[in-house]
Amino acid sequence: MATTDRSCITLLTDFGLTDAYVGVMKGVIVGIAPGTTLIDLSHLVPPQDIATAAWLLHTSHPYFPPGTIHLCVVDPGVGSARLPIAVSTPRAFFVAPDNGVLSYILASEPIVAAVALSNPAYHLPQQSTTFHGRDIFAPAAAHLAAGVPLAELGEPLEPARLERLPLYGPELQANGLRAHVLHIDHFGNLITDVGPDRAAELLTGVTPTVTINNVTITRRYRYYAEAPEDGTPFLVADSSGHVAIAVRNGNAAALLGVKRGAPLAISYGTH
Amino acid sequence: MATTDRSCITLLTDFGLTDAYVGVMKGVIVGIAPGTTLIDLSHLVPPQDIATAAWLLHTSHPYFPPGTIHLCVVDPGVGSARLPIAVSTPRAFFVAPDNGVLSYILASEPIVAAVALSNPAYHLPQQSTTFHGRDIFAPAAAHLAAGVPLAELGEPLEPARLERLPLYGPELQANGLRAHVLHIDHFGNLITDVGPDRAAELLTGVTPTVTINNVTITRRYRYYAEAPEDGTPFLVADSSGHVAIAVRNGNAAALLGVKRGAPLAISYGTH
Amino acid sequence: MATTDRSCITLLTDFGLTDAYVGVMKGVIVGIAPGTTLIDLSHLVPPQDIATAAWLLHTSHPYFPPGTIHLCVVDPGVGSARLPIAVSTPRAFFVAPDNGVLSYILASEPIVAAVALSNPAYHLPQQSTTFHGRDIFAPAAAHLAAGVPLAELGEPLEPARLERLPLYGPELQANGLRAHVLHIDHFGNLITDVGPDRAAELLTGVTPTVTINNVTITRRYRYYAEAPEDGTPFLVADSSGHVAIAVRNGNAAALLGVKRGAPLAISYGTH
Repeated sequence: MATTDRSCITLLTDFGLTDAYVGVMKGVIVGIAPGTTLIDLSHLVPPQDIATAAWLLHTSHPYFPPGTIHLCVVDPGVGSARLPIAVSTPRAFFVAPDNGVLSYILASEPIVAAVALSNPAYHLPQQSTTFHGRDIFAPAAAHLAAGVPLAELGEPLEPARLERLPLYGPELQANGLRAHVLHIDHFGNLITDVGPDRAAELLTGVTPTVTINNVTITRRYRYYAEAPEDGTPFLVADSSGHVAIAVRNGNAAALLGVKRGAPLAISYGTH
Repeated sequence: MATTDRSCITLLTDFGLTDAYVGVMKGVIVGIAPGTTLIDLSHLVPPQDIATAAWLLHTSHPYFPPGTIHLCVVDPGVGSARLPIAVSTPRAFFVAPDNGVLSYILASEPIVAAVALSNPAYHLPQQSTTFHGRDIFAPAAAHLAAGVPLAELGEPLEPARLERLPLYGPELQANGLRAHVLHIDHFGNLITDVGPDRAAELLTGVTPTVTINNVTITRRYRYYAEAPEDGTPFLVADSSGHVAIAVRNGNAAALLGVKRGAPLAISYGTH
Repeated sequence: MATTDRSCITLLTDFGLTDAYVGVMKGVIVGIAPGTTLIDLSHLVPPQDIATAAWLLHTSHPYFPPGTIHLCVVDPGVGSARLPIAVSTPRAFFVAPDNGVLSYILASEPIVAAVALSNPAYHLPQQSTTFHGRDIFAPAAAHLAAGVPLAELGEPLEPARLERLPLYGPELQANGLRAHVLHIDHFGNLITDVGPDRAAELLTGVTPTVTINNVTITRRYRYYAEAPEDGTPFLVADSSGHVAIAVRNGNAAALLGVKRGAPLAISYGTH
């Protein structure tokens, strides 16, 4: 992608918004690559929650222009043997620790190249053991934005050997599916691991019965306001194309007392 | 405003900061209009709270340069018959659902033109039913920033027929005014619907007696630090020119146990 | 620094993220200095907490490019006699109220010049008494970004007379040090006032005994993941070079029940 525009860097961390950690990473970036467009994905990933970061990256990266550099620092292993890496796909770059945060990217995108960020010429001169976001990851992203070839950043890595989390997915059962809550969003919508390939069946075919935390859901709507009332949970297609459970003008997670990872039983034709 | 600079887009949503929804809208924008300056107004509007978003937009838009495009997505009706719209004034553009979020703008600014965002050429190619911020509103704002004329975005609408919320305002009473808390800010300041036209009277004329949630307030100061002590609520002119109730180094909303919409009785000469 | 690039402004406030106050300041800035890079340090400084803002500014400013303008508005004295000021160092500009928020800068950087922001030509035409961030500080930062010389902004001030907070620092005791928690970060890490000059001794010399809130800490690690277990607090070098107390995958502040300012006793060779 040497000739692609690389003017945009996204940032995704668990650094929170009370400290200046994110601002410091941006300061490092604009010092190396002035004029770069910096876009926050989120900095409120729960501390050390690699799986949530992986999901957010998965569902957002397709909406960025080609050449975008995605900088993801959820890094409980900072300072340990886990490698800082950069990966390129035909459309984008990903700079992150090799801890599974790129699991969905590795599973769904062709990987052009992967490197360890081992070349000290592209680190900050002084390095801490507790903030590689500032000292290693932000400089790498910025140097990519400034046009440095990926291969310059360090030793090549075999993409097949990069860390992958076990990804949730629905399991076939006698009478339907056993699925899971992949993500709970700001509105309390429960986004399940029933993805675009199976969502149409659930949302437009024979009405299924969905049971979650002992509550049975049999309604489904095309959009939130189609629900005739507040307070009754229903199925809807989330903006990621996954099946979600929502409540009109309310918070389904709070109503149902459900957390990330909770199982759902989906059955067909039995209610 | 065809020749005006349109390099700035503001964003105001209830999407929160834990997800990447706002980042995704920005990705869509920079894909269409690279180099646009993106400024967040707030993404912590309470979910579905159109009135709060309307107030924030009202009090902030005058401080942006001419040609700014204000993108406001608080949209509980996403996917329903409510129209996505764009409106131009002599100074700015507003892109939002037609659900009342532009009520103050429609009430206080000359409307040059209004359109429904009905032209699919300016939508994302794939559209969800649950995230028009990404699929319709962000692309519209970005195309405006890129110089597309407003009229290209869709069918013209009659400004007089756009949705308006009932706006709070003080009511004249026998011995004074009945007013309301319009907004509670981050500091816990209670901003009332007694606006600039009446604020001078309250803040510099004969001292009024203000009663709110059974607490009587008779002090007023020009600025917070003029209050001689913490813990005693007083009247002050908010930065919007409205009368506010504040506490020095404290949170008036918490102290007074008051929520948005709470009534105040304002009387003159009776204490 | 007349010839230095001044294209970056950082923002640090206690304005929170629920209102549009920060967005309004940015609107004012881009109206005066379009194209400026705007980087948030934090807007979740606890209301009126000047010391926390001072610490965040201290630990982040070195990572920004030369010529950066740091705009810090934690300003409980807004409207009072406290002066709005701008200060230049060989590397940067600082625009803030004269209330101690620049204490670390004044203590550690050579001050080239300081002025009161007294020249009304560089204020907004209309001024409130409650939001100088918008009316005075943001315009000053923007005019600096646009190339206005510091001396134009107002009357010169004697740097030695600017407000300084008493800064925490460890006190020598018979058998060691009495230190303090300077800052608690988003992860719950306790950052102490034992700075880089003494950190090496604590972290690599004879193991000290640290007591905080009746808990004794004798472990120290180079990075979080080096700790063999969750739940046991240990010493580590924070990214600022200060000694910190942390818990692997946990929140040390919550575990230890400690707040900012809490004392630590550090002793050598007695456990």
